[in-house]
Amino acid sequence: MLPQWIIEKKRDNEELTDTEIQNFISGFVSGSVTDYQASAFAMAVYFNGMSPDETAALTEAIMWSGSIVDTSSIRKPIIDKHSTGGIGDKVSIVLAPLVASCDIAVPMIAGRGLGITGGTLDKLESIAGYQTEISEHDFLKIVNECGCAIIGQTAEIAPADKRLYAIRDVTGTVPSIPLITASILGKKLAAGIDGLVMDVKSGRGAFMKTRADAKKLAESISSVGARLGKPVKVLITNMDRPLGRTVGNSLEIIESIETLKGNGPVDLTELTLELAAQMLMLAKRAESRNVALTLLNSKLKSGEALEVFSKMVTLQGGDPACVDDYGVLPQAPIKHMLLSKSSGYITDVDPEKIGRASLLLGAGRSNADDTINHSVGLSEIKQIGEPISKDEPLAIVHAADDKSLSAAMTLLEQSFEVQTAQPEQAELIHEVLETKGVGIEY
Amino acid sequence: MLPQWIIEKKRDNEELTDTEIQNFISGFVSGSVTDYQASAFAMAVYFNGMSPDETAALTEAIMWSGSIVDTSSIRKPIIDKHSTGGIGDKVSIVLAPLVASCDIAVPMIAGRGLGITGGTLDKLESIAGYQTEISEHDFLKIVNECGCAIIGQTAEIAPADKRLYAIRDVTGTVPSIPLITASILGKKLAAGIDGLVMDVKSGRGAFMKTRADAKKLAESISSVGARLGKPVKVLITNMDRPLGRTVGNSLEIIESIETLKGNGPVDLTELTLELAAQMLMLAKRAESRNVALTLLNSKLKSGEALEVFSKMVTLQGGDPACVDDYGVLPQAPIKHMLLSKSSGYITDVDPEKIGRASLLLGAGRSNADDTINHSVGLSEIKQIGEPISKDEPLAIVHAADDKSLSAAMTLLEQSFEVQTAQPEQAELIHEVLETKGVGIEY
Repeated sequence: MLPQWIIEKKRDNEELTDTEIQNFISGFVSGSVTDYQASAFAMAVYFNGMSPDETAALTEAIMWSGSIVDTSSIRKPIIDKHSTGGIGDKVSIVLAPLVASCDIAVPMIAGRGLGITGGTLDKLESIAGYQTEISEHDFLKIVNECGCAIIGQTAEIAPADKRLYAIRDVTGTVPSIPLITASILGKKLAAGIDGLVMDVKSGRGAFMKTRADAKKLAESISSVGARLGKPVKVLITNMDRPLGRTVGNSLEIIESIETLKGNGPVDLTELTLELAAQMLMLAKRAESRNVALTLLNSKLKSGEALEVFSKMVTLQGGDPACVDDYGVLPQAPIKHMLLSKSSGYITDVDPEKIGRASLLLGAGRSNADDTINHSVGLSEIKQIGEPISKDEPLAIVHAADDKSLSAAMTLLEQSFEVQTAQPEQAELIHEVLETKGVGIEY
Repeated sequence: MLPQWIIEKKRDNEELTDTEIQNFISGFVSGSVTDYQASAFAMAVYFNGMSPDETAALTEAIMWSGSIVDTSSIRKPIIDKHSTGGIGDKVSIVLAPLVASCDIAVPMIAGRGLGITGGTLDKLESIAGYQTEISEHDFLKIVNECGCAIIGQTAEIAPADKRLYAIRDVTGTVPSIPLITASILGKKLAAGIDGLVMDVKSGRGAFMKTRADAKKLAESISSVGARLGKPVKVLITNMDRPLGRTVGNSLEIIESIETLKGNGPVDLTELTLELAAQMLMLAKRAESRNVALTLLNSKLKSGEALEVFSKMVTLQGGDPACVDDYGVLPQAPIKHMLLSKSSGYITDVDPEKIGRASLLLGAGRSNADDTINHSVGLSEIKQIGEPISKDEPLAIVHAADDKSLSAAMTLLEQSFEVQTAQPEQAELIHEVLETKGVGIEY
């Protein structure tokens, strides 16, 4: 079957067979399907969608497009977490060592920041020496030694996803639920995991702007996971405001360490614990959410989670001195207070504007090959519901120079809303979807 | 403006400005817009269409993407014909010399095979030595010498169309009314013509499967022609069955020469004469259809049209021996009779299945860089309404080997329908559209 016939079939909204999808993706990897055929296919999928069967077949095709990480040497349940990305989302950095401290393996393959959203790898690279490009052998060795590792996508894992994503990024075909589902799960399942907890973010600072879209993606991921025999627990969480009180790479590392020390902001701590509890239940390390939360809290209090973080940083080549001395992390020369113009309560913090401001400060990338500045960003961001006085800081802006500061300030001045009446607190976790299909077996 | 923003705007069904379309096409030619962005754009246009303004802007952008042929040396009306393509459509090969014999210049820039449809250039290249890649200077010289020439698109003429077409051909984005309109007219107008007769085919063997779609394309072409100040006469004709009795490159050359000799199949002869008559009227060489038809018939009878063909072949480097001896054309080693399984009348011949079968035989291209076999195809194809006896041949299959023969046979056995009652004859020419806008002036 010729590639264009497969494109035409999708264009005409007919259901593709597993074999057709498999052939298209393997042809894409081998070169017999061209980049321009892949992008036309992606656009046809954008318009016509994919059935659950088609999405599952695409996920499997992406998963098998490279080699599957051989995690058989790991004698523990292997559970990962993935987020669709949001402003200030540093959950992975806290969660991986925390869950690992509960005797679960977390071999995490994370991404870089693009657009307004930061990337876990970029944040970790604020730590001097931290290596994200690590061979599969060393990756597994580190996971076996300390329970977790956070690295970048290797060339061997799901190469179809890497190439397809680069094309989708510049052809208007990113926002497609089946393509997002297959990209996330295809890559994650190729990492040899037993189960996955998925944080689908919803709101202005997320890829899915509406609850309805977030729900569609959540259900697609949950259903494909079940179809492929992998338990995937999906949560829909609030990204209508930044997560935590910092945005920017080294600033988020400091906040992550604080959270591991038990001093983190309430929202970040709560979300991390909820996602971690779901991982413990998936791994059958806890029979209920309450039992899981008790265990997780004890690991934070005892310092064991922080200990795992410190060990992971060391094993990945990083300097763990930052755990005790934030002064060794990159610091911006300019620290500027964004002052409130009135008194009252914070009624809104726009994550999209905050994200764009931090991009202007240099914390993120507009293009994939931009370099980023690890030191810049925002700290002490006031949160919705908190009281504020006139001329009290809404946030501290960390900038590299006056030019980028002034560009960011224009946006930041529009990011906060202060009113006299205290607003109701919006929920952080919107929904925890029922897991479909079988549980994991070891 | 980034190319992906233009793709996203079209994807979201917003109207593009002339400047956006112009920038996208000029970026595509210069290389700043990639092939995979062009194919994603084409697929978005496939789904969301284009307004008449957008289509006219795209046509002009394609027209001006290269240089315009300077036809000022030709002291005759310059009229071309274009067809949207169909199975067995070899009209151009008969029509160009026929119309040229009536003192009209026909500088025809023709295409190659596209999917199941053959290409005029591929057919002509069955003739030993025939050159389709000819410089603009030589092209005009040949037209001045014998009245016509049939060459391939040069690198200078509408390069955007050449590249975009190659991509559309293998990405399921050929059947889009605005893209077809802009491709045809952009290229034709760049060839410096005074007027154009357009054969829009309708039916299973055409891009436009339905009369309604064919009508839309016909009106789009007519309207864009008028917007850009060129008279374009559009006909809608029947492609619910193959045209003539042959499909395949050298086999169609034989049938074309037979038609120039006055021995062609009735349908091919009738359609060629009708299109030619419209060209004569557009060129003001005949005041009515009847006068035009009388003149054209006399040129066939006198052998003048065949003489022009022979001269054109010679001037384009080809061996005119084929005019008198079909044995010099490529011949397939296997000639297999497709036998009827019952007696009665031919009630249906499916052009789409015939086209796919001839693709499987090797007569066409699946990918733009596939090589084609000039010798293979079908001849002596029975036509709708003709009587047939059990075990009498429905067609002769010309194959290169047993493998391709057997692949094609599966399709061919489903291509003919035989029933006891004689069917009514369907009309060949569905509609001749009124010409919009101004007439030509010399």
